[in-house]
Amino acid sequence: MELPIKVVVIGGDAAGMSAASQIKRRIKSAEVVVLEKGIDVSYGACGMPYNIGYKGDIDDLVVLTAEDFKTKRGIDVRLLSEAVGVDTKSKKVFVKSLSSDREYELKYDKLFIGSGASASVPPIEGVDREGVFTLKILDDARKIKQFIEEKKPKKAVLIGGGFINLELAENFKRLGMDVVILEKLDDVLLNFDEGVSELVKEELKRNGVEIICGVNIEKIEDGLIVETDKGDFEADLVNIAAGVKPNTEFLKDGEIELEKGAIVVDRYFKTNVEDVYAGGDCALIYHRILDKNVYMPLGTNANKAGRIAGANMAGAREKFAGIVGTIIFKVFEKGIAKTGLSLKEAVDNSFDAFETTIEAPITAHGFHHQGKVSVRLVAEHGSGRLLGAQIFGDAEAVWRIDVVAAVLYANLTIKDVQGLDLAYSPPFAPVWDPILVCANQAIKKVKK
Amino acid sequence: MELPIKVVVIGGDAAGMSAASQIKRRIKSAEVVVLEKGIDVSYGACGMPYNIGYKGDIDDLVVLTAEDFKTKRGIDVRLLSEAVGVDTKSKKVFVKSLSSDREYELKYDKLFIGSGASASVPPIEGVDREGVFTLKILDDARKIKQFIEEKKPKKAVLIGGGFINLELAENFKRLGMDVVILEKLDDVLLNFDEGVSELVKEELKRNGVEIICGVNIEKIEDGLIVETDKGDFEADLVNIAAGVKPNTEFLKDGEIELEKGAIVVDRYFKTNVEDVYAGGDCALIYHRILDKNVYMPLGTNANKAGRIAGANMAGAREKFAGIVGTIIFKVFEKGIAKTGLSLKEAVDNSFDAFETTIEAPITAHGFHHQGKVSVRLVAEHGSGRLLGAQIFGDAEAVWRIDVVAAVLYANLTIKDVQGLDLAYSPPFAPVWDPILVCANQAIKKVKK
Repeated sequence: MELPIKVVVIGGDAAGMSAASQIKRRIKSAEVVVLEKGIDVSYGACGMPYNIGYKGDIDDLVVLTAEDFKTKRGIDVRLLSEAVGVDTKSKKVFVKSLSSDREYELKYDKLFIGSGASASVPPIEGVDREGVFTLKILDDARKIKQFIEEKKPKKAVLIGGGFINLELAENFKRLGMDVVILEKLDDVLLNFDEGVSELVKEELKRNGVEIICGVNIEKIEDGLIVETDKGDFEADLVNIAAGVKPNTEFLKDGEIELEKGAIVVDRYFKTNVEDVYAGGDCALIYHRILDKNVYMPLGTNANKAGRIAGANMAGAREKFAGIVGTIIFKVFEKGIAKTGLSLKEAVDNSFDAFETTIEAPITAHGFHHQGKVSVRLVAEHGSGRLLGAQIFGDAEAVWRIDVVAAVLYANLTIKDVQGLDLAYSPPFAPVWDPILVCANQAIKKVKK
Repeated sequence: MELPIKVVVIGGDAAGMSAASQIKRRIKSAEVVVLEKGIDVSYGACGMPYNIGYKGDIDDLVVLTAEDFKTKRGIDVRLLSEAVGVDTKSKKVFVKSLSSDREYELKYDKLFIGSGASASVPPIEGVDREGVFTLKILDDARKIKQFIEEKKPKKAVLIGGGFINLELAENFKRLGMDVVILEKLDDVLLNFDEGVSELVKEELKRNGVEIICGVNIEKIEDGLIVETDKGDFEADLVNIAAGVKPNTEFLKDGEIELEKGAIVVDRYFKTNVEDVYAGGDCALIYHRILDKNVYMPLGTNANKAGRIAGANMAGAREKFAGIVGTIIFKVFEKGIAKTGLSLKEAVDNSFDAFETTIEAPITAHGFHHQGKVSVRLVAEHGSGRLLGAQIFGDAEAVWRIDVVAAVLYANLTIKDVQGLDLAYSPPFAPVWDPILVCANQAIKKVKK
């Protein structure tokens, strides 16, 4: 490989900056240019709801600035610089400077696309009114914080019942607002089984959050008034979190393969085009249980994708082990977590699956502090192979999802789970950990 | 098998009652007699230090009484009934009633020995004085609680630096006592590597506990005064926790194979003698990493041993997966945990091992609540196979040991650990979980 290698990275968040850093670490002489259309790079986006709720400084979320990347890592980060096209034949990226409106071209030897995703906003009247927000990038959080500071909103309507709005519900309540969640579908938390989402809704209600499912938003009137087929809802602040869409518009007429707008990659995060890699919220990612690519835009996935892609762009040959779909989030005092497949997803993917759900204490019998957790294991008949888990309970107890994530990685069975030597001590777990209690029940249900 | 099968179980704690319950669950007609030399069965022994410290009712620790086992499970539990001998040829247990001094014989078709262990007390003058205790069975806790209630001790000297005395140190401090720990060896926590035990000692000292290692106890004088080669220590209460020894004296001249006093069992918890099974603190247990039996008297191990032995005694053929040596305990605000082998143990067992230790945050960058944890991974050069982990840090963070316990069960490598899809959300973990941070460092140290 002729030196110095020229690398262009599109997108300066988790995936892009991980890739850029990895390349520079491995090839010191590499010329790495990162194009970021916004004004922030490398920040903890998942912390935004809490930063709002706990009134933190928005800059607390910034891990490294563009300047840090330049001085500490020798990476040329260009803010307000949007990639508007890629020519993979001549190996060029077309760049538009949003500060000067200047357009220019950048040649690359290797290209990484980590352009992320944008919040999906349903095509309804009034979504552009003042006080209507989405929360995807750091600048969104800045705007919401400023709005709260200035307008002191008392009523929030959250459109969409996914985890971002659930986290916002807790944090808006913390700020003293009334909160209503409106969800188009029949249930919140699409990826969880019904019984589990029920527990989450209970916790939301217990904390005074109103949840209305199966509702169609018709219009957002000035005021603000959210008009729906289930009545009008007054709001001082509206947040729309109705899914995201990959930022791949600029690739539309090119050679790079997309699937429903997301970039198709192999297990090395290489696209179908030589020397072009991709990862993060703009791309698909390999799912270990499903043994196929899925679209799962999460911070952990983006970080891993960027790191591995960067290594491979620098000449390594690292194959991605794959995700198992682990997610966790807090809902007031409770935590909810999932890894692998829900029963619904397992059945939809043709697994002969069953579920076992238990509720168990999280500390030893007689310990002064008592709590509980509900564990659902999803497994396959015949093989007994574990396919997934959903855990809901006291926030201090849901970390157990990581144990199952390790089990899923290793392709273990329910019988194996029974054999795990999990830690026991009164403050930490009962002598039969809830995971083992559930496995002990599940084993009885496996059909041979 | 002729029915009804007669089963005798020696010992009514975790292993014995698990075995007895399992047999009755599988063979309703079985006649199951449990011989317990004490007055309690089925209690959470590990909760005793906390029950003392938080002034709980001692009965809070009792899970089921002898009466419960009789009425709910049809098990004939005989308290104050000591097994004084076993004749495996004529299949008889010799029983001494401690309440009536009557001796009698019991015939068995299947025998389970779960006679537990007793606290080792060093042969020094004065260990029988009033105010000198050991804490192994529930009645020990009763006595300590009564003593504290009546005598209101202000100074405690704890002889032995293992986890029981460390837990007691926290709880005696909670009750307002001054606490000194005296350890014969050069360090506390024998099974941990040096750097890790150092962190524990710091936490003890930070909480005002004095720790003196390499000290020889010479005598306990009335007063109480603990006389040692490093000076005299005044005490109102002394607890000796200097290891345990298996309760197998009554088997000494018999056919059942012992190793250093502990009963030798196979992976079905069967002894060398037909129809005789054993498990819990009186027996060895199979260690999955070492691929051999070890002596590790812990509550979890006893429960599993009893359950599997009981199933096998009832005709099943369940092979024990083995322990990986997971332990966890709390030291004031910190937690310390271990699974698998320490570096020292790995090297002693001829592994070409190395360790990697990191300290990492436990929540996301910029999250309002910050904590940290120290993770040490021990792995093998060449294969990269993980051999163990030691974790110390904020109590809320040390559960991660269970993730490594699952990894060890599955025989995974450091490379695999890097690939784990662990949960990420600001309140629960940083985007790179401490386990992954450590694996990312460890991978660089593996010699091919």
